[in-house]
Amino acid sequence: MEKITSLSNSLVKETAKLSQKKYRDAECKILLEGYKPIYEAYLCGLDIEYVFVNESKVGEYKFVKEKLIIASEAVLKKISTTESIPEAVGVCKRKSFDLNNVGKFQKVVLLEDIKDAGNLGTILRTSCALGADLVVLFGDCVDLYNPKVVRSAVGALWKIPIIQTTDIEFIKSQFKNHTKIATLPRSKNLLSKFNSEIPFVVMFGSEADGLSEKLIEVCDKDVKIEMKDNVESLNLSISCGIILYKLLIN
Amino acid sequence: MEKITSLSNSLVKETAKLSQKKYRDAECKILLEGYKPIYEAYLCGLDIEYVFVNESKVGEYKFVKEKLIIASEAVLKKISTTESIPEAVGVCKRKSFDLNNVGKFQKVVLLEDIKDAGNLGTILRTSCALGADLVVLFGDCVDLYNPKVVRSAVGALWKIPIIQTTDIEFIKSQFKNHTKIATLPRSKNLLSKFNSEIPFVVMFGSEADGLSEKLIEVCDKDVKIEMKDNVESLNLSISCGIILYKLLIN
Repeated sequence: MEKITSLSNSLVKETAKLSQKKYRDAECKILLEGYKPIYEAYLCGLDIEYVFVNESKVGEYKFVKEKLIIASEAVLKKISTTESIPEAVGVCKRKSFDLNNVGKFQKVVLLEDIKDAGNLGTILRTSCALGADLVVLFGDCVDLYNPKVVRSAVGALWKIPIIQTTDIEFIKSQFKNHTKIATLPRSKNLLSKFNSEIPFVVMFGSEADGLSEKLIEVCDKDVKIEMKDNVESLNLSISCGIILYKLLIN
Repeated sequence: MEKITSLSNSLVKETAKLSQKKYRDAECKILLEGYKPIYEAYLCGLDIEYVFVNESKVGEYKFVKEKLIIASEAVLKKISTTESIPEAVGVCKRKSFDLNNVGKFQKVVLLEDIKDAGNLGTILRTSCALGADLVVLFGDCVDLYNPKVVRSAVGALWKIPIIQTTDIEFIKSQFKNHTKIATLPRSKNLLSKFNSEIPFVVMFGSEADGLSEKLIEVCDKDVKIEMKDNVESLNLSISCGIILYKLLIN
């Protein structure tokens, strides 16, 4: 098994660049930090190119045996984006997804202008666990392949189709037969009394600004979560979890 | 208004120490980073001792006018724990809470061994927004006054009583008339069919280990969130949000 300790090794330098969006996009690659993202990428059949691993952890990565490269702590530190040094860092190719005919998906989550990587990852994980079948990133969201999104999504990135668009006409035409639901703090419709038929698109805006008017106009219904004396607010990923549970399960 | 630019100023050095738990505990103080934590602490009537603020932002902190000290970027950087430099950093005194007679609270959330500061802050925020009336931190949880907990709780830290204990007998005796509910992935009771009378204590374990046997033994009921083919899992704060919504509102 190859062993790399030099920070000026060309593969180390190439991998370190993937912490920047422009290099990730140009190479169409994803940085996988730690056991879970690597294992989930493997389970989902992604094309894992190589995995740098701490020598003491080699035994836990037998599933990618042929791809392993032993790396020093210094190398792992250089190529990772986390504060604590991960035991392994891998690189895989992105899967491409066909933008045509997404209207066939019945239970759709749309997120507008989500900036927080942890929130996005958690919402993807929740959507997947509760059985949504498509996520649409609308407008100017945080990069889907941001390493923090990859970590907090815990594999959801590859288990549910995710598309990105800034085109409102695309939304209107693809989902013309879907009930489109705006989640709005000013809504008069309380979630506990709310029901929606399938197919639907449920839309969430950013924590800072909420949904934009152009998306609200497209919607057929709106809903809010009832809260204690309307003073408090919920974290976006929590609102999303509560509303998806209600629409998809209860 | 006083202005401090020296990193060796004694108040700057004292404040910087509060990023460490042992100093926070010894001084019984809380570090407040950014507008929201400072404003919420003010609204909740906490005793704010002083606020270091960027000169350009003074106008937004009129509510603590007498406590303001203008600080250079370098000072704000030194005393803060965040990657990006906050516009203001304040310090306030902790409120003490009476451990006796907590059995009077009806809607109680118990968290065991929660290690992730962001999760704990978000769960406090959610508990508060959905109308729980007491949070119990059981066992070995992350420090409640960790600056990341303070930030992600967005004021909830001072709006809902929070107690800490490692004593199972205390739980048994204080909550002897409460229905005690274990949230367990292995439960056969699905949340959508689940109801509980008030008063209750609903218990959540850590993401890594779940609830300990000693707490499970104390419980009268258990419940799980139904998920797609049982393969996926939810982030703890999301599970907590969905279950609390169901118990407290719907």
